Amino acid sequence: MITQVNGRFSTTEMESVLSVSALVCSMVDFEAALSRVQSSIGIIPEEIGVAITAACQNVKIPAEKLEILAPNSGTLAAPFLAELIAQVSEQNADAASYLHFGTTSQDLIDTASVLSLREAGKLLEAEMKALATALSELAKEHSNTVMLGRTMLQPSPQVTFGLKVAHWYGAISRAITRLQEANKHALTLQFGGVVGTLSAFGKAGIEIAEALGSELGLTVPPAPWHTQRDNLVELASAVGILAGSLGKIAIDIVLMMQFEVQEVSEPMLAGRGGSSAVPHKQNPVGCLVALSASRKVPGLVSTMMNSMVQEHERAVGAWQAEWPTLVDIYSNTAASLTAMKDVIEGLNVYPDQMLDNIKNTQGLTYSEAVSVALTLKVGRSDARRLTEVASRLAIESDTSFEQIILNSYDILNVINRDELTELFKQKGNLGVSQEFISRILNNRY
Amino acid sequence: MITQVNGRFSTTEMESVLSVSALVCSMVDFEAALSRVQSSIGIIPEEIGVAITAACQNVKIPAEKLEILAPNSGTLAAPFLAELIAQVSEQNADAASYLHFGTTSQDLIDTASVLSLREAGKLLEAEMKALATALSELAKEHSNTVMLGRTMLQPSPQVTFGLKVAHWYGAISRAITRLQEANKHALTLQFGGVVGTLSAFGKAGIEIAEALGSELGLTVPPAPWHTQRDNLVELASAVGILAGSLGKIAIDIVLMMQFEVQEVSEPMLAGRGGSSAVPHKQNPVGCLVALSASRKVPGLVSTMMNSMVQEHERAVGAWQAEWPTLVDIYSNTAASLTAMKDVIEGLNVYPDQMLDNIKNTQGLTYSEAVSVALTLKVGRSDARRLTEVASRLAIESDTSFEQIILNSYDILNVINRDELTELFKQKGNLGVSQEFISRILNNRY
Amino acid sequence: MITQVNGRFSTTEMESVLSVSALVCSMVDFEAALSRVQSSIGIIPEEIGVAITAACQNVKIPAEKLEILAPNSGTLAAPFLAELIAQVSEQNADAASYLHFGTTSQDLIDTASVLSLREAGKLLEAEMKALATALSELAKEHSNTVMLGRTMLQPSPQVTFGLKVAHWYGAISRAITRLQEANKHALTLQFGGVVGTLSAFGKAGIEIAEALGSELGLTVPPAPWHTQRDNLVELASAVGILAGSLGKIAIDIVLMMQFEVQEVSEPMLAGRGGSSAVPHKQNPVGCLVALSASRKVPGLVSTMMNSMVQEHERAVGAWQAEWPTLVDIYSNTAASLTAMKDVIEGLNVYPDQMLDNIKNTQGLTYSEAVSVALTLKVGRSDARRLTEVASRLAIESDTSFEQIILNSYDILNVINRDELTELFKQKGNLGVSQEFISRILNNRY
Amino acid sequence: MITQVNGRFSTTEMESVLSVSALVCSMVDFEAALSRVQSSIGIIPEEIGVAITAACQNVKIPAEKLEILAPNSGTLAAPFLAELIAQVSEQNADAASYLHFGTTSQDLIDTASVLSLREAGKLLEAEMKALATALSELAKEHSNTVMLGRTMLQPSPQVTFGLKVAHWYGAISRAITRLQEANKHALTLQFGGVVGTLSAFGKAGIEIAEALGSELGLTVPPAPWHTQRDNLVELASAVGILAGSLGKIAIDIVLMMQFEVQEVSEPMLAGRGGSSAVPHKQNPVGCLVALSASRKVPGLVSTMMNSMVQEHERAVGAWQAEWPTLVDIYSNTAASLTAMKDVIEGLNVYPDQMLDNIKNTQGLTYSEAVSVALTLKVGRSDARRLTEVASRLAIESDTSFEQIILNSYDILNVINRDELTELFKQKGNLGVSQEFISRILNNRY
Repeated sequence: MITQVNGRFSTTEMESVLSVSALVCSMVDFEAALSRVQSSIGIIPEEIGVAITAACQNVKIPAEKLEILAPNSGTLAAPFLAELIAQVSEQNADAASYLHFGTTSQDLIDTASVLSLREAGKLLEAEMKALATALSELAKEHSNTVMLGRTMLQPSPQVTFGLKVAHWYGAISRAITRLQEANKHALTLQFGGVVGTLSAFGKAGIEIAEALGSELGLTVPPAPWHTQRDNLVELASAVGILAGSLGKIAIDIVLMMQFEVQEVSEPMLAGRGGSSAVPHKQNPVGCLVALSASRKVPGLVSTMMNSMVQEHERAVGAWQAEWPTLVDIYSNTAASLTAMKDVIEGLNVYPDQMLDNIKNTQGLTYSEAVSVALTLKVGRSDARRLTEVASRLAIESDTSFEQIILNSYDILNVINRDELTELFKQKGNLGVSQEFISRILNNRY
Repeated sequence: MITQVNGRFSTTEMESVLSVSALVCSMVDFEAALSRVQSSIGIIPEEIGVAITAACQNVKIPAEKLEILAPNSGTLAAPFLAELIAQVSEQNADAASYLHFGTTSQDLIDTASVLSLREAGKLLEAEMKALATALSELAKEHSNTVMLGRTMLQPSPQVTFGLKVAHWYGAISRAITRLQEANKHALTLQFGGVVGTLSAFGKAGIEIAEALGSELGLTVPPAPWHTQRDNLVELASAVGILAGSLGKIAIDIVLMMQFEVQEVSEPMLAGRGGSSAVPHKQNPVGCLVALSASRKVPGLVSTMMNSMVQEHERAVGAWQAEWPTLVDIYSNTAASLTAMKDVIEGLNVYPDQMLDNIKNTQGLTYSEAVSVALTLKVGRSDARRLTEVASRLAIESDTSFEQIILNSYDILNVINRDELTELFKQKGNLGVSQEFISRILNNRY
Repeated sequence: MITQVNGRFSTTEMESVLSVSALVCSMVDFEAALSRVQSSIGIIPEEIGVAITAACQNVKIPAEKLEILAPNSGTLAAPFLAELIAQVSEQNADAASYLHFGTTSQDLIDTASVLSLREAGKLLEAEMKALATALSELAKEHSNTVMLGRTMLQPSPQVTFGLKVAHWYGAISRAITRLQEANKHALTLQFGGVVGTLSAFGKAGIEIAEALGSELGLTVPPAPWHTQRDNLVELASAVGILAGSLGKIAIDIVLMMQFEVQEVSEPMLAGRGGSSAVPHKQNPVGCLVALSASRKVPGLVSTMMNSMVQEHERAVGAWQAEWPTLVDIYSNTAASLTAMKDVIEGLNVYPDQMLDNIKNTQGLTYSEAVSVALTLKVGRSDARRLTEVASRLAIESDTSFEQIILNSYDILNVINRDELTELFKQKGNLGVSQEFISRILNNRY
Repeated sequence: MITQVNGRFSTTEMESVLSVSALVCSMVDFEAALSRVQSSIGIIPEEIGVAITAACQNVKIPAEKLEILAPNSGTLAAPFLAELIAQVSEQNADAASYLHFGTTSQDLIDTASVLSLREAGKLLEAEMKALATALSELAKEHSNTVMLGRTMLQPSPQVTFGLKVAHWYGAISRAITRLQEANKHALTLQFGGVVGTLSAFGKAGIEIAEALGSELGLTVPPAPWHTQRDNLVELASAVGILAGSLGKIAIDIVLMMQFEVQEVSEPMLAGRGGSSAVPHKQNPVGCLVALSASRKVPGLVSTMMNSMVQEHERAVGAWQAEWPTLVDIYSNTAASLTAMKDVIEGLNVYPDQMLDNIKNTQGLTYSEAVSVALTLKVGRSDARRLTEVASRLAIESDTSFEQIILNSYDILNVINRDELTELFKQKGNLGVSQEFISRILNNRY
């Protein structure tokens, strides 16, 4: 469900998986898993892993308090550990002694972040698939629904609404694949110890890393990535691109929802879209959420990218800039995604109005078809001249372009009337629109 | 006090003035003030203004609930009004009937935002002034503390630490003036009614606007600014530039705090800077906060700027993207500002180490002074040649540049030894450093 | 004239003043002025200043060659000086010996940049004033031209086209003032020598700086600003905000130019706007240029802002990132400005179509007026209920809202028919539109 | 070779492949290939394809002139076609008549852009591979070269220089794969005709598209992508991430090149790095180029991302904003890449200085090792207390930490001297540094 947190759009689900509380839970999981692994490999006493894991199940770490203390060291790690150690100590002082052994803040924070982003990615993926399904159905339903094409917001030859929707689908479909790939690259274990050498474990380091990855269900990369953030930025970009593709859907719908166009409208969801001053005005509030996200996310992704310049073995500032930026990227995009899913699932489509809008152009959108047909008879320059004369006449005399054309001796001299009439069939020449729709829909994520 | 909210640095004070609750309070104030003004001018019954104001003092608007409902219409306005009307109705159904009369969501949201930003600006200004005072004192204290100049992170002729600090002061001083100017431009009443014509009030519109501005202590601009956001973006930029100037202070300190340089260190504030793995390592955590902000704020300002393209009389998406972006800009910058104020107020400065670092360059930083002196005797190309030969010899023989120079016949041929000796006085040639310090410090905000 | 350089929009005039050649000319001017000042103050022999100035008039510095060599040192300064010294030497070896005395690359580059930006600013200012004049006239001409207000791209109560244009004017007017202020802050002499202490000149530094500023017509700031770039970023922001305000004008025009809206159209300038495939389609190409700029400039301004974090006495990377970024900001904005000036000066306005578009809403845009009027009779909740019932009926029965209202017993019970009829006068209730126009136009830059 | 164009860093090779001239050549290729395909499929007369292709070989399209005319229609397409048709007409008027048949500006511009980006990608890939090779060799050479780890710019336990370099390698290796993947997605044929339906060709559209893709060596996507720019933005992001990873290498080198650190230095390439004022100062000019790029590219990528919101079948502004932005992204990144390749291939490494820098920390960087060893004996809290006492004593008495530890009764009580001595071996505990290096280097692009 779309919600707002301190003014920022999000979904309640995304807020939950990206909350500080969720992050803290993942941090507890990390420390418990690490102790189990170290016990099983014999780095720390055998019973400690079980004891820590048991104790961890009873800890209650107050997320807000950690946030108040975090600025003292730059991240949640230090206050979290102080709290965790204190709470585990109360239960089992001996076990507490082995907490966080041989690891470091960055291992803890980065791995916990990855665990949160994994959940966040699942939410996005499920919602993208639901949106893709809705788009696919809408595209099929309207594969023959003819409407004006519009280039630079000016009327152009016809397309089908189904083709437009299929393009929206294509982008979401690619976004799914892109996110999956980026997740594969970015959602890996961070485990390197103080400077990324796992110095506390002698030769056992790799073995511990593999076991820890296995405990947490995370791939173990060739080496830690503490100051190599490229995969994380790839992930941020993938989400940012999704926000852009959703913005594209939204702008099309907003434009079609204009009173003067009226080709589609957002569904009237309960409580949605009312104006505080004008009764019975329906605002495109789903699109609003998506367009707002597509304005905010690019700047956030640029922050992720310029934060890649991280000094030596741990950055001062650039690393710490990432997490809140990621939270903003995911939250805004999640809200956008749910908003557009809701919009598409209930979109009202007005095919008659689409035909009316074509009719209102008085046939001028057929000028390309006429020009093409004439070119094949008399070559480009004569074709262009003939079409332009007819266009100008249509505009000046406020007559339909079709009538002008069908009554032009110059034109009837070079092309026969039946061929011309064919060009003006209301549905226009849709080329391979159908094939394009099939090709896009078949090219599944 | 610096704190963190869902991973984003802020201060507790800034969080408070930019909270949704504070915004909602300002929204209540707006509606109450509007009713008083309308009663006094005779637009609505005379007693209503007092009644609404009284009722408003008892309302309790649940900010979180509004945020859950906000996505239905894109802003807090609609759920806020529903709640306000309900609560006022319970107290005085008649009065409630005149709430929000003739105004619109955007008037409400924008004016309330301005009221919040006014408080936020006061916090920034007070903190900037405290920082400026600390910088001014530090600059005076160290106006004779000589240190290496460094260009492109390579050693250069001497400067004074006081001059460096004075430059920091200059930037903060200008930031104060810049914020004051931007506030004057941006913190004005928004009041235009549904489409910015104040259509509900006939000719009384201007009078109501002036009275409302007066009630709220806000300047009334020539006209509403619903889709003209230039002054708001100027304000965002002014705060963003402050974040950049704070980042400049932080990078200098971080570099001087390197173990190999050790010219300054952050104060050891209670609970600050410890490492979770390495005892007795002091991290530059104040600078970390500032550097993190200087990475995040520029992307946020770009969002404000690209959101200026707002359609017709109210934008869909771009307008709604602004508030959370502003909150992020102010919060991050406030944290950075407080962090640097704390750092500067307690900064440890090590003048002896500064002298040692000069000495370690073996006099090579004096090469410019020698080159300048020689140029006045023998012209540029000979001067350069002589200095280069001596420099190379100093490096190759691991001898001090001063010794090489004072023993070079070629050089003693053209310049006398006393003049040369003068050049190598430990404090170096500081030019007009003192005058620059005075000029900067006297050029007060 | 708008042009394009390697794909980037600009104007021929802006290209000229921001070219490398122009920068090199300013660099020559700087060195010549410096020598004159140093001669007159007695730092270098009296005749040298005149000699260098004379020689400089004959130099031909090949800009392209310098650009090839610039990456060796990071800026144009080193290859420029090599070339300048060589060419002056050929004319007067003695004089050449005193070139660039006591100054440094950054003084040279920054001051030359400032001289170029001064010319660039003049171009922008003149063009903004021309645009402001055109907007002012257009606003006056159409102060009574009624059109639909549109909020979130949905029809709303009426505004006047003149009010819309006046708002555009207001933004440009403020942009002029903003640029003038920013220029005052940023366009100052950079003169500090190697590390910003003017160490080569003993106590004479300030005197030389003042004289040099005077020679070049530049204010001398309290101290050099080599790594304090706040004023420069303020300038970049001011230009960026202009680009945003131009984008706002463009989006409004693009939307009004839609075939379905047809309220205005760009002038058909010679050679403008044709489609390569569709004869007689007029594209909004002026707006295209402006909208393209408003998408590009914010990211560029963010680069300027994140480049403020400059190390010690000269930055490595951040400083050098600025100039090409500024060139892009100014070029894109200049193209946008000229494009919109051309568009506004020749804009076709179709007031009849504006009235038609109002009529097509069947009176629903008057619902706010009805609601306001009823509120004053029966209070908010009854007013709202009555208006909503009528609105729904109008939509469901495809009847005009006016007719529904004027035939509703419930409504005629509480408000008399004449009062209602008054509300539906075609021009609608324009509130204080006229006053707002006057106030904006009188609030001149 | 790195060069500069109007202030922007680039390489001569990249400038060449991304020049307007190169783009125009690709545009000619597109039109010629299209005519051949249409002739062979029988859409236009059989001989025309050959004739057009022949005529195209003689055309000379003046790129600068096209750029002057481009703003009239927003892109190069219209002036290009006018010129092409004129020049082909002179040779063969009949053939000219069939030029650009059934296609549109966007097909022409997008496909030509893709052809240019393909060449640009080849340049990047070759240079990345050369850099990767140099990094791989450097990493192997220094796999045992011990140096200080540094976290938040403070000294930490040891790493090896080889491990640091291997991490640089890893990022470049991933960048190669990422660019290859993004190229696969983005470098595809754009071919849809006026509105993306290939309406001019009836059912033959797909066949023509396939044949045209084959002629140009481009994959044919399921459908045209005129307003779905996600793959293009993915490509821009991939290049942007490369710029970030290069910036990471550069910041590490710049920091190690500081006079006070002196662990590496850039090679003294011919003409490189001199200071205009200070003889014998070596500036990190290669890193400067890379750091400058890493500041500029993120803002440019954000422009690409916010330009994804493209209206209907062709955008007004957003589409046209892309090409110059891409040119900037590629140029800056190419310069950065070549700069870092040159730096790495000739990097001077000073292992003795690295050891000295470790020694200067007086053993404090071993505190983690001591703390870890003690933890296994006496648990975390006692271990931490003992280490802290020793650290404080070392600092206060200016004695080496090693000596303090080896003379502490409290510590010798719980751990034997030999075990302690082992911890302080000069090379420190490098954990699995070697394994990490192997794993990274074996994980080849």
